[in-house]
Amino acid sequence: MNQKPHIVIVGGGFAGIEAAKALGSGYVRVTLIDRYNHHLFQPLLYQVATAGLSPGEIAAPLRAVFRDSPHIEVMWREVTGVDSENKKVLMGEESLSYDSLIIATGSEYNYFGNEQWKEFAPNLKTLRDATLIREKILVSLEKAESSTDPVERKRLLSFVMIGGGPTGVELAGAVAELVRLSLSREYRKIDEKEVRILLIEAQKSILSSFPEPLSNRALQDLRDLGVEVRLETKVVSIEKQRVVTDGEDIASDNIVWAAGVRPTPVAQWLGVKADRGGRVPVDGFLQAVGVNDVYVIGDASGTFDDKGMPLPALAPVAIQQGKYVGKRLNRIIDGRDDSREFRYWDKGSLATIGRSKAIALIGPFRLSGFAAWLTWLFVHLMYLVGFENRLLVFVQWAWYYFTFKRSIRLITERSKWESKANLKETKSGS
Amino acid sequence: MNQKPHIVIVGGGFAGIEAAKALGSGYVRVTLIDRYNHHLFQPLLYQVATAGLSPGEIAAPLRAVFRDSPHIEVMWREVTGVDSENKKVLMGEESLSYDSLIIATGSEYNYFGNEQWKEFAPNLKTLRDATLIREKILVSLEKAESSTDPVERKRLLSFVMIGGGPTGVELAGAVAELVRLSLSREYRKIDEKEVRILLIEAQKSILSSFPEPLSNRALQDLRDLGVEVRLETKVVSIEKQRVVTDGEDIASDNIVWAAGVRPTPVAQWLGVKADRGGRVPVDGFLQAVGVNDVYVIGDASGTFDDKGMPLPALAPVAIQQGKYVGKRLNRIIDGRDDSREFRYWDKGSLATIGRSKAIALIGPFRLSGFAAWLTWLFVHLMYLVGFENRLLVFVQWAWYYFTFKRSIRLITERSKWESKANLKETKSGS
Repeated sequence: MNQKPHIVIVGGGFAGIEAAKALGSGYVRVTLIDRYNHHLFQPLLYQVATAGLSPGEIAAPLRAVFRDSPHIEVMWREVTGVDSENKKVLMGEESLSYDSLIIATGSEYNYFGNEQWKEFAPNLKTLRDATLIREKILVSLEKAESSTDPVERKRLLSFVMIGGGPTGVELAGAVAELVRLSLSREYRKIDEKEVRILLIEAQKSILSSFPEPLSNRALQDLRDLGVEVRLETKVVSIEKQRVVTDGEDIASDNIVWAAGVRPTPVAQWLGVKADRGGRVPVDGFLQAVGVNDVYVIGDASGTFDDKGMPLPALAPVAIQQGKYVGKRLNRIIDGRDDSREFRYWDKGSLATIGRSKAIALIGPFRLSGFAAWLTWLFVHLMYLVGFENRLLVFVQWAWYYFTFKRSIRLITERSKWESKANLKETKSGS
Repeated sequence: MNQKPHIVIVGGGFAGIEAAKALGSGYVRVTLIDRYNHHLFQPLLYQVATAGLSPGEIAAPLRAVFRDSPHIEVMWREVTGVDSENKKVLMGEESLSYDSLIIATGSEYNYFGNEQWKEFAPNLKTLRDATLIREKILVSLEKAESSTDPVERKRLLSFVMIGGGPTGVELAGAVAELVRLSLSREYRKIDEKEVRILLIEAQKSILSSFPEPLSNRALQDLRDLGVEVRLETKVVSIEKQRVVTDGEDIASDNIVWAAGVRPTPVAQWLGVKADRGGRVPVDGFLQAVGVNDVYVIGDASGTFDDKGMPLPALAPVAIQQGKYVGKRLNRIIDGRDDSREFRYWDKGSLATIGRSKAIALIGPFRLSGFAAWLTWLFVHLMYLVGFENRLLVFVQWAWYYFTFKRSIRLITERSKWESKANLKETKSGS
């Protein structure tokens, strides 16, 4: 039994779990390594940050995902490198031998050389990031409700999202709804007009991967929600509670960075030269060029479309690449034809702006408004595959949709946030 | 309008919210102060600690609870004292005047003079406590799965609950089920026989408020689940990863303190002498003796039953006292009869041990096993009143019940826990 080839997969995101699922149990032993104990449905992470969904609703423990797959072992480890000559994955002082290695470590937020901004403008990549952003927003509202200092109130009620890609747009829309609609009856000393939600984008349009009419529609939708969108605006510096752009100096307690991602440093692990986008050059079979038995899939894979454009760092690409590599390895091990190269099938793109507002590009079809939103909802629910609670998430959303109520607005880590003396934790008290 | 009497309620637990709800909108202005932003359904907190429920499912933001009650204002503050002469509630440098004050600050865990134990044996009182205990349990399982050191494995797989009251019993039962049933197919290198779950109780029975036959049945149920119950066993000391009792020296990474509560220091705030149980002496109307216009309700209220026994620190007592005081103030302000004293109506008691296992004492009726468990389930779901997601919680429980799956087993704050080098958070990695 130990003679079966050992396939190691690094990363339990979309690419990694699809690869693991596609690897047949009869052929191989599989080890899936991740530094978190759960798979995260990243497209809905902004919902956790805005108290629309609970962490448990968009995450699934990796061990639970593979509980019925005895040939797949899950390891909770931080991979620190690869010894591709000796075919070993390195994890600190530990190492693990592989016959074939699939790297699916995804991407991370890029501060473009300004790593010091991260402290003041966190990004949204993990569940922890999301719950901390949620807490920050809620604490700001609480503080504003009781503050009588107009300067402080303005700072607390300014929400600045940097980056007009899907995450920035979804977050801005969701914050607008959370603050303006859900909370109007709860924070009675906050006037809707005091709240400022800004979305800052360096390029001349938001959601620039979409055709101009759709991108413009999204812009209009956001503005209808009360979001101030600043296009062609560059961030000059970020300090504590302050964003300086080339046109403005904004005081804000709530700054979120969503201005671009870069691949995880896989090229460095493999000792190869990354492409211009920081990705690992791969051949038509998604194998790292110049390295034996290593596949790179997902955001870190240097793949291109028919026109020579890099494939986007999106879930559908990762999913298709994961399935492809899993099936390919099955075929090879089984001695079958292995000449079929990877081809990405673009099923379309979607972005949501808020309740009933979305844009969709599906082949030649362009949708916006409620129809696009329904499409978005349907696709996201369908892709929560492997999530036992897909139906519960749907019921909960339907509930929010019709009632405007959100019950997950919990502040549990107050002490994390700079707070007034009277908000500090002590042993006695109310 | 500002001529309406101002009622200040300190504490948003069962007693506080029931008092606020009972105060009619026509009569008064109400301010409810809590140091958390949410009401917590404490009887189910152990479910969060054992990954059975999400935090959002047992907590409701106080502002949401009172969103349709414009006469009730919610304040997120830490109360630090009471100036009963000038009728002011003190919150650090702030203060708030009241016409009548209702104190419902509940109880806190009692380490009986050994506060230094708290660091090594946390208790279960807040959502934060629950998620940290959950994380600790999951991290222990992860570490045990990859440890080859038998001493370390034994320590990681020992779970020690101190205190055989409802919380300790429920926690021990839930941990037993989480570890032995749900995880058997997921942690494949952990043998069920390696897992030790201990419940330590100083008295000669667990759940000692129940009649002996029911208490014995609960003991048997726990033992059937594989919990080692140590009766008449005193804890001598608690250190890091170690509990010493008068008969044993137990190495454990997972120690939880559930060995008794004491009232919050309300007597001290009011400058009165507490009773033997640390509670504030109150008259038949629940008014603090010797203090004007201050009511004390819930766990900190020095109330007794017909036989002169202190009323227990339980939700039903708190709820009835809250309703009583709210209605009484309505009557007084309205100039109606105010001579009716508080009487506790004991509807019975319930405790659950695990799936299908519970005990119930309802008037002359004693239930155990599945019937008691169904009663327990029904009562708890009915009391999740004000929780929008009662139905969702029910559906989720039914799901767990039939599938043994739990999807909330998330480790999000790994760095909080002492961890091996290879589990540490870094910027690169899988």
